[in-house]
Amino acid sequence: MNEVEVNINEIYNLSKNILVSYGITEEEAKATVNSLLDAELSGVSSHGLMRLKSYAQRIEAGVINVKPDIRIDKDLDSVLLIDGDNGLGQVVAHKTLKICFDKLENNSSVTAVVKNSNHFGTTAFYSKQVADKGYLSIISSNAGPTMAPWGGYEPLLGTNPLGASFPAENSNFVLDIASSASAKGKIRAIKNKGESIPKGWALDHQGYDTEDPEQAINGTMLPIGNHKGYGLSMMIDSLCAGLSGASLSYETVSVGSAKRNANIGHFFYIINIDDLIPLDNFQTRMGDWFQNLKNSKTREGFEEIYIPGEIEDNRKKNVKDIICLDEIVYEGILNLATQRQV
Amino acid sequence: MNEVEVNINEIYNLSKNILVSYGITEEEAKATVNSLLDAELSGVSSHGLMRLKSYAQRIEAGVINVKPDIRIDKDLDSVLLIDGDNGLGQVVAHKTLKICFDKLENNSSVTAVVKNSNHFGTTAFYSKQVADKGYLSIISSNAGPTMAPWGGYEPLLGTNPLGASFPAENSNFVLDIASSASAKGKIRAIKNKGESIPKGWALDHQGYDTEDPEQAINGTMLPIGNHKGYGLSMMIDSLCAGLSGASLSYETVSVGSAKRNANIGHFFYIINIDDLIPLDNFQTRMGDWFQNLKNSKTREGFEEIYIPGEIEDNRKKNVKDIICLDEIVYEGILNLATQRQV
Repeated sequence: MNEVEVNINEIYNLSKNILVSYGITEEEAKATVNSLLDAELSGVSSHGLMRLKSYAQRIEAGVINVKPDIRIDKDLDSVLLIDGDNGLGQVVAHKTLKICFDKLENNSSVTAVVKNSNHFGTTAFYSKQVADKGYLSIISSNAGPTMAPWGGYEPLLGTNPLGASFPAENSNFVLDIASSASAKGKIRAIKNKGESIPKGWALDHQGYDTEDPEQAINGTMLPIGNHKGYGLSMMIDSLCAGLSGASLSYETVSVGSAKRNANIGHFFYIINIDDLIPLDNFQTRMGDWFQNLKNSKTREGFEEIYIPGEIEDNRKKNVKDIICLDEIVYEGILNLATQRQV
Repeated sequence: MNEVEVNINEIYNLSKNILVSYGITEEEAKATVNSLLDAELSGVSSHGLMRLKSYAQRIEAGVINVKPDIRIDKDLDSVLLIDGDNGLGQVVAHKTLKICFDKLENNSSVTAVVKNSNHFGTTAFYSKQVADKGYLSIISSNAGPTMAPWGGYEPLLGTNPLGASFPAENSNFVLDIASSASAKGKIRAIKNKGESIPKGWALDHQGYDTEDPEQAINGTMLPIGNHKGYGLSMMIDSLCAGLSGASLSYETVSVGSAKRNANIGHFFYIINIDDLIPLDNFQTRMGDWFQNLKNSKTREGFEEIYIPGEIEDNRKKNVKDIICLDEIVYEGILNLATQRQV
């Protein structure tokens, strides 16, 4: 993989203008690019700017609605059902967060289940915003089927991520974990380097544990912790799709496919910490806890103990005006910009 | 380990009467024994009747309150803060569930965070009751520190379990997973058989990966999926203790210790499915999904695909009037009954 140095402002505007050229509003295009760029700067390229091309392909195929009427289908006391009207996942999630924050003006907790959405990027992008508001969150999305149920080898489950966040004294806790041992994107990167993958990550198409990344890509991902990741993925499917009427992972399509509407589901659970414990006290206590963990002894092979989200946060803080992008991703965006005359 | 066949009614009454002899009410004693017996019959002996002895030791040491005034500290729109007044965990959880079910008469969701509690058994025991009511749940508890943060080897985190449940057509989905790769109880059982443990389960007291169960018991448990289980354990600590004011795992004591109050925290999140989707439709759809997963191809070494909770449910259904108990556990209960003159 060759990398090129790219000016952040330039790539931001280019990406945003591509989306605007399809009829997406300025605000919604910004929300989308903010999510992709946040992932890119945090070192999570698998959810970064490489996604723009597949979003554009889906828009051009007519399976994403660029003018969605995102609406509240049910507004219950503490629970909301949101219809994303097949908008870009980031656009739907951006609006959903706003609705949740409004609801939290008068409520101690809010649960929003979302249907008719699409790939929304990382959960971390949203859960950081929640923590910045002084709230605690659990945020999830389901995804296309790439993982086998425990004991099987047909791809019927998503690598559905579990996100969680809360604020502490000098930083946020930001958890964003897939329910699979690894991700196809990561395995592709290993394949490009000509290396092999560890056992326990994936099965080949006949259901045998494989160390060959090529076989893994044509096979299925394995859940983390055997039956545990399997159960976690199902729990997330029930929250995102079971409660909302979105497609379950086995009913939807991969984010890379432009064949049909995805009807992806999301789950947002947010609680107003300050209603239970004065926020200052909570943040101080969490900060002390983090220090205790970080000050504890490291084992051989580790130099530091990190709080979930800290590594990504450090990476992002170290970026100035320039990022390194995969050359193929950068050229893809340039080509798209030329096509769209932006 | 020698096993003895025991009549279920006999052991139920004996256990209940032991608790009653300490001044616990009939209803609260039943709630406690129901939890322990449910785990035992489901094959989860680590949370079964073997726990009664440590509960009794803690009661006798005066670090559990047998007449707790379990009260609602804060009753917000959709969020409750419950003070368990240092009652037995099962007693506190039993009352909390009741309060939650009452709240759900008029609410679409309820979150209850609980402080001043103790070891409450399995999350599955409570989440099954929630699913039987037609609700969906996420239920957790924190626990004493036995697990290292990722990259470290000091026991600062609990093997905090994540529980989740919802009802389907012919069965419930019941997830109950520890955030550690294994549990000390399981490692003790392996040690008793003279066998070794797989790498990745535990570290010795100097922080080295060990296959020796003895070294593991004196060392620390490892999280599932490396940094993932670590983050999961922290998330659960924040929900159970951060929000409620209970002790974080690193501040509390092991359930086996009778030195001081534990101030364990719990988290209950329950949502009324029928407010979002007609319950019948939800259950039918989930049932179809389960069938699809179960009908998919199994890989070598597996004969069947199970839905989370199914194996435990099958075990319980196969029990008639008799269970097999560890002889040491049974004799411990008999001795306790003699001491307590019940």
